[in-house]
Amino acid sequence: MLERFKVLPEDVIRVPHTSLHKATAAIFEKMGCSPGDAKEGADTLVTTDLRGVESHGVSNQLRVYVKQYQDGELNPRPNIKTIKETPGTASLDGDRGLGIILGPRAMKKAIEKAKTVGVGIVTMRNSGHVGAVGHHSMIAAKSNMVGMCVTSGGEHVLPTFAAEPRFGTNPISIAAPARKEPFFLYDAATSAIAGNKIFLAERVGATLLPGWVASRDGTPIMEEAMSPGRNNYYQLPLGGTREQGSHKGYGLAMMVEVLATMLSAASPAMLGEPRLAQDHFFAAFNIDAFTDIDEFKDNMDAMLKTLKETKPAPGHKRVIYPGLAEYEDEQDRLKNGIPLHHEVVDWFDSITGELGIPKLERM
Amino acid sequence: MLERFKVLPEDVIRVPHTSLHKATAAIFEKMGCSPGDAKEGADTLVTTDLRGVESHGVSNQLRVYVKQYQDGELNPRPNIKTIKETPGTASLDGDRGLGIILGPRAMKKAIEKAKTVGVGIVTMRNSGHVGAVGHHSMIAAKSNMVGMCVTSGGEHVLPTFAAEPRFGTNPISIAAPARKEPFFLYDAATSAIAGNKIFLAERVGATLLPGWVASRDGTPIMEEAMSPGRNNYYQLPLGGTREQGSHKGYGLAMMVEVLATMLSAASPAMLGEPRLAQDHFFAAFNIDAFTDIDEFKDNMDAMLKTLKETKPAPGHKRVIYPGLAEYEDEQDRLKNGIPLHHEVVDWFDSITGELGIPKLERM
Repeated sequence: MLERFKVLPEDVIRVPHTSLHKATAAIFEKMGCSPGDAKEGADTLVTTDLRGVESHGVSNQLRVYVKQYQDGELNPRPNIKTIKETPGTASLDGDRGLGIILGPRAMKKAIEKAKTVGVGIVTMRNSGHVGAVGHHSMIAAKSNMVGMCVTSGGEHVLPTFAAEPRFGTNPISIAAPARKEPFFLYDAATSAIAGNKIFLAERVGATLLPGWVASRDGTPIMEEAMSPGRNNYYQLPLGGTREQGSHKGYGLAMMVEVLATMLSAASPAMLGEPRLAQDHFFAAFNIDAFTDIDEFKDNMDAMLKTLKETKPAPGHKRVIYPGLAEYEDEQDRLKNGIPLHHEVVDWFDSITGELGIPKLERM
Repeated sequence: MLERFKVLPEDVIRVPHTSLHKATAAIFEKMGCSPGDAKEGADTLVTTDLRGVESHGVSNQLRVYVKQYQDGELNPRPNIKTIKETPGTASLDGDRGLGIILGPRAMKKAIEKAKTVGVGIVTMRNSGHVGAVGHHSMIAAKSNMVGMCVTSGGEHVLPTFAAEPRFGTNPISIAAPARKEPFFLYDAATSAIAGNKIFLAERVGATLLPGWVASRDGTPIMEEAMSPGRNNYYQLPLGGTREQGSHKGYGLAMMVEVLATMLSAASPAMLGEPRLAQDHFFAAFNIDAFTDIDEFKDNMDAMLKTLKETKPAPGHKRVIYPGLAEYEDEQDRLKNGIPLHHEVVDWFDSITGELGIPKLERM
């Protein structure tokens, strides 16, 4: 993450990941989830915070989920239905369950299929937010597969040249295992910037950079400025302007819409279908079906090492690859705790008090 | 394509697509290809030119292929070998055949698998250039599937913060069918700009825009300028700079490297493996395995129509979607011929004369 999104040191309270996991799971149980589902949801969120992806951890998301359960929008005891199924594929209806809980289940189904026919694709409609898509891809990578997960939904991002938003931030993730090096893990929105990063910037008082958002008439804002506030901008696709490649961000957003929404027997948000939030796509490619797994991991190690050791451009200390900084953050946070903004810790204290569950510990 | 890449009107000679197809197929036959393979190669190139994708049609590519056949680098009679195969997957060795000829065959194999198990994934190593990846994705879309094709190879593109190039322009394509509207067809490099577009800019005398390339020490060139010439720059990933999202272009390039190279039992170009050029990944998702095909097409029509009718931002005439302008170009070019730079027509006259085959007709 860019430095501008980091919580300022004076605002940080570090909490042990075990306590954060326990409190988060207890909150999900109080929302009516089964103990197994509550643990799954806490796994997704806390793993994401351990990896340094604050935008998709407990800070921005958990209070939203709590509200969605309390409003009856999310179903804590979903009965997942199979719409269609073949040896290599399945499309599921999530029965308004929360995506961060159902996602790992869907990916595991894809992995089982990939063990049999080499590849497994599972799509899911009618479920809530899936969290950091990379979390689900990593489940496949840990099973000796290449994992992919993408998710679509919402209307925040402008097509190139447009004055009306048509897409969600539609992120793409992929993960692949290595032997000695930290796994390759890519996870990023197809918009210039993730929606949650804008909220994070607002919280930490950071400016937005040129080409990240547009004014409400669709004109890209090309000066560095504070966020115009939640209802005064639209997001731009990756690239920002046509000249810088925004048609690519736009096309990739549509790719996600086709894979996650169209292939899950749903209809895009832009068509106004009344539905919860997002549709998801999970893919597992069984490495053993394509090549020798040991050779694959050796090649991955060699590639990742080459990238790490690539000579940096002037002004930069080192070259990293997607997944490396996340791994380093994880090592630090497992040991030294997860840094939360004090407002987030306040929220935990208030909700745990309200629900009558143990308070979040501090390091 | 941006206007700057278009051949200037005074330099254009229009030729009938049928004649261009005939001449191209005749050239492939003279290179030793079977009549069927020669036709397949001409199909890929001429379809690409019909769709307005000059960068990947006959103009830049055909003379390269001819040289590769003449130098013995490409094998005109490849014997494709299966490395591994399962009901849903296959990894193939292309035996130094040309990718634009073998690609459609690989995609058809993926389609056959998807008819049986819902999804088909075919990877291919040890084959030449695959042309416009979108061409192969469209073959699946025409069979009522969602098609994807990506290709990797070469070392032209810098990782974020790097001073040494590590990736090819590693393009991603996806195509999906609709009923009444022109099909969705996305096909673009994960670099800020396709390599061939830089050569095109050089040919038509256009400048390069900020964030497209870097100087040889890895510093992004952030002023509009003429190309520094073939050996004086490296390409930047989509996004250009870290602040504008170049880590996303970089991560997507790695995604392609994993899918196309690692899953085809090959090793990345950056590790110096001696090999022809590119590795490819073909995916076919059988729509019928996930949802009702008629409903899918209706949803596609509704989405594509919504995008076309989206209010444009100030200064823009309309919103298009990936595949629409290509469809419009195709309608024009089928009727009025394919516009080639006169230098390209000169090359055709010279090669057809040399090989003793009929000359390219003019409109």
